[in-house]
Amino acid sequence: MAYNLLKGKRGIIFGALNDMSIAWKVAEKAVEEGAQIVLTNTPVAVRMGTINELAEKLNATVIPADATNVEDLEMLFTQAQEAMGGKIDFVLHSIGMSPNVRKKRTYDDLDYGLLDKTLDISAISFHKVMQVAKKLDAINEGGSVLALSYVAAQRSFYGYNDMADAKALLESIARSFGYIYGREKGVRVNTISQSPTMTTAGSGVKGFDGLCDFSDRMSPLGNANADECADYCIVMFSDLTKKVTMQNLFHDGGFSSMGMSLRGMTQYNKSFIDENKDSEGNIIYG
Amino acid sequence: MAYNLLKGKRGIIFGALNDMSIAWKVAEKAVEEGAQIVLTNTPVAVRMGTINELAEKLNATVIPADATNVEDLEMLFTQAQEAMGGKIDFVLHSIGMSPNVRKKRTYDDLDYGLLDKTLDISAISFHKVMQVAKKLDAINEGGSVLALSYVAAQRSFYGYNDMADAKALLESIARSFGYIYGREKGVRVNTISQSPTMTTAGSGVKGFDGLCDFSDRMSPLGNANADECADYCIVMFSDLTKKVTMQNLFHDGGFSSMGMSLRGMTQYNKSFIDENKDSEGNIIYG
Amino acid sequence: MAYNLLKGKRGIIFGALNDMSIAWKVAEKAVEEGAQIVLTNTPVAVRMGTINELAEKLNATVIPADATNVEDLEMLFTQAQEAMGGKIDFVLHSIGMSPNVRKKRTYDDLDYGLLDKTLDISAISFHKVMQVAKKLDAINEGGSVLALSYVAAQRSFYGYNDMADAKALLESIARSFGYIYGREKGVRVNTISQSPTMTTAGSGVKGFDGLCDFSDRMSPLGNANADECADYCIVMFSDLTKKVTMQNLFHDGGFSSMGMSLRGMTQYNKSFIDENKDSEGNIIYG
Amino acid sequence: MAYNLLKGKRGIIFGALNDMSIAWKVAEKAVEEGAQIVLTNTPVAVRMGTINELAEKLNATVIPADATNVEDLEMLFTQAQEAMGGKIDFVLHSIGMSPNVRKKRTYDDLDYGLLDKTLDISAISFHKVMQVAKKLDAINEGGSVLALSYVAAQRSFYGYNDMADAKALLESIARSFGYIYGREKGVRVNTISQSPTMTTAGSGVKGFDGLCDFSDRMSPLGNANADECADYCIVMFSDLTKKVTMQNLFHDGGFSSMGMSLRGMTQYNKSFIDENKDSEGNIIYG
Repeated sequence: MAYNLLKGKRGIIFGALNDMSIAWKVAEKAVEEGAQIVLTNTPVAVRMGTINELAEKLNATVIPADATNVEDLEMLFTQAQEAMGGKIDFVLHSIGMSPNVRKKRTYDDLDYGLLDKTLDISAISFHKVMQVAKKLDAINEGGSVLALSYVAAQRSFYGYNDMADAKALLESIARSFGYIYGREKGVRVNTISQSPTMTTAGSGVKGFDGLCDFSDRMSPLGNANADECADYCIVMFSDLTKKVTMQNLFHDGGFSSMGMSLRGMTQYNKSFIDENKDSEGNIIYG
Repeated sequence: MAYNLLKGKRGIIFGALNDMSIAWKVAEKAVEEGAQIVLTNTPVAVRMGTINELAEKLNATVIPADATNVEDLEMLFTQAQEAMGGKIDFVLHSIGMSPNVRKKRTYDDLDYGLLDKTLDISAISFHKVMQVAKKLDAINEGGSVLALSYVAAQRSFYGYNDMADAKALLESIARSFGYIYGREKGVRVNTISQSPTMTTAGSGVKGFDGLCDFSDRMSPLGNANADECADYCIVMFSDLTKKVTMQNLFHDGGFSSMGMSLRGMTQYNKSFIDENKDSEGNIIYG
Repeated sequence: MAYNLLKGKRGIIFGALNDMSIAWKVAEKAVEEGAQIVLTNTPVAVRMGTINELAEKLNATVIPADATNVEDLEMLFTQAQEAMGGKIDFVLHSIGMSPNVRKKRTYDDLDYGLLDKTLDISAISFHKVMQVAKKLDAINEGGSVLALSYVAAQRSFYGYNDMADAKALLESIARSFGYIYGREKGVRVNTISQSPTMTTAGSGVKGFDGLCDFSDRMSPLGNANADECADYCIVMFSDLTKKVTMQNLFHDGGFSSMGMSLRGMTQYNKSFIDENKDSEGNIIYG
Repeated sequence: MAYNLLKGKRGIIFGALNDMSIAWKVAEKAVEEGAQIVLTNTPVAVRMGTINELAEKLNATVIPADATNVEDLEMLFTQAQEAMGGKIDFVLHSIGMSPNVRKKRTYDDLDYGLLDKTLDISAISFHKVMQVAKKLDAINEGGSVLALSYVAAQRSFYGYNDMADAKALLESIARSFGYIYGREKGVRVNTISQSPTMTTAGSGVKGFDGLCDFSDRMSPLGNANADECADYCIVMFSDLTKKVTMQNLFHDGGFSSMGMSLRGMTQYNKSFIDENKDSEGNIIYG
């Protein structure tokens, strides 16, 4: 069901790879809600993924750009305005990658060159997007800029590695730039901290299935999926949230406010059942 | 402009007194967005304020009820379902009052009987609303319950007195009941922490004008007003935020994430200008 | 090992019941560190527990007082100053009890009379202690007031029930009164948020063992015990923390900053092992 | 007054430049409390500042090292253990610098090469210190690692620029490494978020005087100074805080928990006095 929430608005969506991507869902919903969009991703991701199919379906332009490259971003914002016939109203940053995780470097054995890349790709790129947009005056007064984050920015999760630091940096950049962009141009900047989501990126995290199960049992409403996340993004792009800025918004079925749920604890307690004994405590000889 | 976000939904709105009330604006927008509503307030407030005018305009039923009284709430939820022909989809709790503030008792000279009243009216009533609704199974699966809060729940504001503690308790109740109501009925529970707003309630707070000015200059987007708050409430009642629960959502133009803004500091620094000297430092004899 | 950190200081310690109590350990360490103390608890708890043994061992006075009763508190602060020969330097509030939990009322079936008692005993008593002390000018400039809290004040824990709300209120009172007491008398007010601890109070919480195990495996340093908590309290009473106020200080081996640990996840994943099958998947007939 | 809190302990202190430095005070107090220390700073800072005087006074070794350089850190930890005759018990990281601030690049006109430097010097160096220490097994079980932070990591302060992001990253690194170092070696890792302090570093921040004044009037106990901060550091290095880890500890006279104080508001309100009019509202002709 569509509401016309983004009627007449123009957006740029970073990070759609394939139909599992949150950015993919956001693109679909944004168009359903009346927006015009430009899709962008790195040239490699454009080739590897299926973003062109999406573009065709949505009648959207694809402009390949490396979000860590200022010149690429200048080109992107310039061409996107040309392609859509006016200034931008909303931007989604859904970009994150850790070469340390890919190379299986543990957090106490980081390669610092790779850490720089993690931070540049996953966090500093968000600053670059906004700095370029602001210098080009490419975003309309009242516009909305969003990035996707994860609760690991605030609490430590086994295996999330240097992505935790990248997300903390990302959330800080949202606050810092949100102050500047808000006071000077009335543009709001927020992050959505989403449940673990089975995307191509998410599935790279160590022990992801167990974590998803735990997260789901801890969350009174269960994990939020990519479609629901897209709905929340639409809301944050709409004119109904014009005074929300510099916030990290949890979209997680309640996980972030849970310490321990009954379902989580019940499952956890099963782990203590001694699988080698019968119900009367006698050892089972298999 | 309306989007039909609440088409077919039924809501109960606590706390509309007059056209300055946030609850008043929420009622108007909810109806604009396609909802059917019941308005409620204490019998005294119904007489003192102009809620009946609003009801007439919106074609809504008014059911007087004291939100601290369980029997009143049972009657309210029962009659509201009858009046609207089905279960409730959303509830707004916009209730707060401190008799200690009214009686000018400072925070280090509280009357404990009055403190109990502050907590009962401003926070425990929220628990009562939900406990009654849940026992009557009066809220639809996927429903949304909201209360209005203020940042003083988390940081100390001169003059806000025992209302700060009441708001902290309110936010805790939202989390605690949000867990239960979510896991059992899929109902989400959140609070919106709104900018200081010039309502009849707000204007009772000591030094309110100065605080509003400071808050406005600190917030990159300025203070959020009652209309904008109503927009955000609509969004939280809609189907687009179904996995957001147990959250305190700041709706404040960025205030909560600010430490010091340029505008705030500039104004503050003016306080040190010596108003008895001219620009060359000579004393002005008036 | 003792450091003389509290040499010449006088303290009042609420809540020692028996030698499992955190307050008991704090009393012992405070005396070791050179302080003079008064022990207090309700008349019933004084009879039920073994506080008189402790008093004898520490050469301390016991003054029974109900911390929810203002007159009792006035008597306590007056007599404590007489007994120790001067104003008070530190106070420990280690008081919490939920009659709803005792009566097995679930959170969506609270008795509101009992909820008032939970809040009065576990949170408002902290305000009463400070209001009485301030009115009697019973605490020295630079004094330190502490209460014990739990992370459930901020995140929902299954079974903690209305104690979560009481702890949230307690932490808010620490901030609110901390502002007043700080600016007027230089007295600091903080809460320590302690790991789940096997005290008489703790053991009343539903599923406490499982929770302790989970908490221990989630915390990189393991759960903090009562002795360690007492050390932290001493530090907060000493002159080395004079500018720390209005804070909630986690003393929990890192739990509060964890999302998921390797140890926690490993244990959790064991719960999925099918205890009725052997390693080749054949059903075991016992 | 000393308590022997660090008797027999060995520490490394990064960042003492001159006698205004917090690290300088920490070094003095650590030695007073019975510790042996090694002082370190970049070769340039060793030459520019007066660290050698301090070393002489404290009978400490100076080992110049660039904390962004892994090889320097390896040399430092190796030589420090040799110089002091054993493993390290505590480390203070008091390092921060933004070349963007120095070059007067505003936050919406950052030089990204300089941003990398800000992050490397002010945050990633903290990771490097710990990764090197852990690989060399240079820190004793139960050791304590501290870094100094500022509330701008969490809320935006005009003029603090990319240092805000660096501090957010620093606090995240403390959590992330605190988890690893805690579970594997029992080493705790924390940050202290200190009041604005008139050090050589602090005084580089734009509008620092006004900010200090505001911060002081907002804080019920006033700003914490460098000496008091050193006391808190000692406490965090001592055996009395062994279960505190992954925390950001505010040492700020209450600032972080304040929204608006009476003193702050009173001063702010003076800014609205019209300095061109006399008390009867007549324009003053100078």
